[in-house]
Amino acid sequence: MEPIELEAKFRCNNIDALREKLQHLKAIYLDKVLMVDVYFQHPCRDFRATDEALRVRYLKSQEKREALVEMTYKGPRGEGWVKTRVELGVVVDNFDSLLTILKKLGFHEVARIKKDREFYLFNGVEVSLDKVEDLGSFVELEDKGAGEEGIKKVAETLGLKELVPETYLELYLKKHRSVIE
Amino acid sequence: MEPIELEAKFRCNNIDALREKLQHLKAIYLDKVLMVDVYFQHPCRDFRATDEALRVRYLKSQEKREALVEMTYKGPRGEGWVKTRVELGVVVDNFDSLLTILKKLGFHEVARIKKDREFYLFNGVEVSLDKVEDLGSFVELEDKGAGEEGIKKVAETLGLKELVPETYLELYLKKHRSVIE
Repeated sequence: MEPIELEAKFRCNNIDALREKLQHLKAIYLDKVLMVDVYFQHPCRDFRATDEALRVRYLKSQEKREALVEMTYKGPRGEGWVKTRVELGVVVDNFDSLLTILKKLGFHEVARIKKDREFYLFNGVEVSLDKVEDLGSFVELEDKGAGEEGIKKVAETLGLKELVPETYLELYLKKHRSVIE
Repeated sequence: MEPIELEAKFRCNNIDALREKLQHLKAIYLDKVLMVDVYFQHPCRDFRATDEALRVRYLKSQEKREALVEMTYKGPRGEGWVKTRVELGVVVDNFDSLLTILKKLGFHEVARIKKDREFYLFNGVEVSLDKVEDLGSFVELEDKGAGEEGIKKVAETLGLKELVPETYLELYLKKHRSVIE
């Protein structure tokens, strides 16, 4: 019943070269978006210890007029080269009201991560070119039918080697030396 | 910034007679809806002690095709004849996913209240005729511009006397002798 996310992230110091490669390989351009991800700590459970996450995402697409707001719960990550975790999301009509409700319920904002993401579909894998504010450039590969082996093959084809096991949240907290209350 | 709800609830043993009275007074019929309200207890805060509430409402209108799902936080009630409390809500696209997310976050479902509500606008007051499963019939008056005095006048005009200070949740819990975990 619960959808499992299958994805891998890599550091990428030359996004422009990778974009050219994708175009050369005839990957399908999907969209370009601005994403603002707000992460919360639970009022009485330590999400670092339980490896869970609660995220509110503000997403503004270049293709669509209206911004989209999503609230997503992520369960603990499984083991393996490719990450797996339970991910449950709902679309919400108001970013500010949702943030206020979560704060009233005792959730603490611990990070706000802003990224420009451009994404392509290639051989059953969604390839996202991410420029993340303060953190640099990354490529995320997410399963769209290719499975774990398909993700590995796409990574090889694109020459992606520097696997990043951390989430953007972990990278952000490491960089900002923030302490989750 | 935070909207304050201004309302009063009365017991009403003859909804049909009251409907006729409203029609005679030329109240404006607004809609008839089925509402299912799911109430939650906080994972580590006792909402009975803090007088807060978190509610997920499923609402199916007779006028509109699609059902509406709302998540609402209610702050502690203020003092006074007419109830006041902070109320913050968002519209969500999926009832089941939202309930699952809340459960994953440690919120416990404590009550599920089903009611048929028919509502009218009369002299700046929204008049709701509620038939609540297991609890009986009630009338709720909610401010839509008339203010506290306006609500009192409408109550007098409609002959409403038996004020019910409890919320439906409290009435439900009393009746079902449920214990909030």
